[in-house]
Amino acid sequence: MLPPVSVQRVLETCLYVDDLDQAEKFYSDLFGFELYGKQKERHVFFHCGEGMLLLFNARETQKANHGFPPHGATGPMHVAFEVDESLIPAWKERLNQKGISIEQEIIRPHGGHSIYFRDPSGNSIELATASLWKAQKKNLQLT
Amino acid sequence: MLPPVSVQRVLETCLYVDDLDQAEKFYSDLFGFELYGKQKERHVFFHCGEGMLLLFNARETQKANHGFPPHGATGPMHVAFEVDESLIPAWKERLNQKGISIEQEIIRPHGGHSIYFRDPSGNSIELATASLWKAQKKNLQLT
Repeated sequence: MLPPVSVQRVLETCLYVDDLDQAEKFYSDLFGFELYGKQKERHVFFHCGEGMLLLFNARETQKANHGFPPHGATGPMHVAFEVDESLIPAWKERLNQKGISIEQEIIRPHGGHSIYFRDPSGNSIELATASLWKAQKKNLQLT
Repeated sequence: MLPPVSVQRVLETCLYVDDLDQAEKFYSDLFGFELYGKQKERHVFFHCGEGMLLLFNARETQKANHGFPPHGATGPMHVAFEVDESLIPAWKERLNQKGISIEQEIIRPHGGHSIYFRDPSGNSIELATASLWKAQKKNLQLT
């Protein structure tokens, strides 16, 4: 008899970027993520919490010759990183110091504070408090 | 003096799907993720561990009239979910029972066991053990 299956968490979150060197610099400098490894023209991999943030060049990962199932998307994607509410002012200041425009800020009365900006490839990056997803009102358009 | 900034983890991992109803059924049935909420034609949101898995219809999220920064990508994306090594046989059996083909299986000698398959939109889904990312050899092409 096999045990019931489950998954623990998302282990790998992926973004596709136009320029891997530029993306590596952006994510290293802004977030301080620890680099796991990289492969020229194909990917840059970062640790992020208990998971991984994988940045890919879709033109390479779409090819079938890398030994992995091909994938690769085009267009701006979205990712959110969890931050403590107490750090939001410091994050706003840091973004300002780096010359990164805040595209939108949302403070939700039922919980959740978000700041949105873009990475150099145009991906929509959000810093959000976890309380965003603890709201009881279902079916709200929250992201 | 503002405190040093940090992020805790990836809070929201996004995939774009062709058919939200089909995707909701797939991710509910296969993984048992708890539904957080949905909006017809726009999104289906699931809890996954301490984070969220957000499934979007890119044709809607690309529009600027939803009150959030627009985003939306096309093409197959990749995500990995962490599973315990002990559950891999049960996962393989479950995929088989659901008629989902395993596209690739990789057992890495330095650590890490992965199974790849596709969601109904063609996104590349991986079930992987966390030991995959604890390997010391940098610059390996691991995903």
